[in-house]
Amino acid sequence: MLDLLSNTHTPMLPPINFCSQCGKGVEQKIPQGETLPRAVCPACQTIHYQNPKIVAGCIPERDGKILLCRRAIEPRHGLWTFPAGFMELGESTEEAAARETLEEANARVRIQTLYALFSLPHVDQVYVVYRAILQDLNFGPGEESLEVQLMPIEAIPWDQLAFPVIRETLHRYVEDTRRTQVQVHFGAI
Amino acid sequence: MLDLLSNTHTPMLPPINFCSQCGKGVEQKIPQGETLPRAVCPACQTIHYQNPKIVAGCIPERDGKILLCRRAIEPRHGLWTFPAGFMELGESTEEAAARETLEEANARVRIQTLYALFSLPHVDQVYVVYRAILQDLNFGPGEESLEVQLMPIEAIPWDQLAFPVIRETLHRYVEDTRRTQVQVHFGAI
Repeated sequence: MLDLLSNTHTPMLPPINFCSQCGKGVEQKIPQGETLPRAVCPACQTIHYQNPKIVAGCIPERDGKILLCRRAIEPRHGLWTFPAGFMELGESTEEAAARETLEEANARVRIQTLYALFSLPHVDQVYVVYRAILQDLNFGPGEESLEVQLMPIEAIPWDQLAFPVIRETLHRYVEDTRRTQVQVHFGAI
Repeated sequence: MLDLLSNTHTPMLPPINFCSQCGKGVEQKIPQGETLPRAVCPACQTIHYQNPKIVAGCIPERDGKILLCRRAIEPRHGLWTFPAGFMELGESTEEAAARETLEEANARVRIQTLYALFSLPHVDQVYVVYRAILQDLNFGPGEESLEVQLMPIEAIPWDQLAFPVIRETLHRYVEDTRRTQVQVHFGAI
């Protein structure tokens, strides 16, 4: 069973009450040619869509070890994750993963291959995770991290990981490493 | 050089003028602990994030042929695409790809493997494309399609494809087929 709370980075998207374009109160209705109810502005006719968000991240690798961060922010303050965060406008998923790694771990990575694509439909997120090469050893906690460690996979703190999707991704990563075989993983969690 | 217009499914996200929660006019400012300006409501303090959207689709395969749709809607009315569309809240990327295929081609597919993940940073979209098995031959145009054809790859209408990302994905697909090798493709287009 999915533990909703333990998957939640942010609260689910709040309902739309007012038009972000003109400020009038919206109506819930099914626009012509569509099948789902949307928030529609009766004044300016804008249809307000809400869609899942992408969380982009990477597993930074060096000398057989991986870089993990201990969170300095809620939710899951104090628990461990690989660098990952919400993708911004105007960037690619690879750029987003590298930027988050720089922000959270002050670490420079070279993105290598796509490793995992996991949907979290209950929290409207899609995780896109790459394998990456950690470029140098000049890393350290960014504002959102308490500490950052380059650790052997035997040292992964399984009972101190921040989210189920982090655990699932790292679990598969360790399994792949043991098999000396790497595949792309995808599915819903 | 990227042709912006030819990648555009929808106009770029319009700016946020009013708070969707309380209806007050928003201010552009950098929230504490963040690095980018956001639309922030001075009344209820809601921070309004805007993020890229996922377009989920699939290449439905049967008997060495693939299923393509000719668009009945703008943009790119009359041009060809594989089934794909914006992911909705509460679904996985696989479910979104299958739903879009049902809506656009009245076709039932079984999603097989992840095939491509392409970022379109200039239009704030990320394409997630699967290979899928077309379950039966009972397909036909949905409301958004003029016609639907199961066609051999030699018949792909290269000069009549709707978007560069569709062309790039199908180009790689054909190349992979010739090499009898299939890999996951990713990157920015």
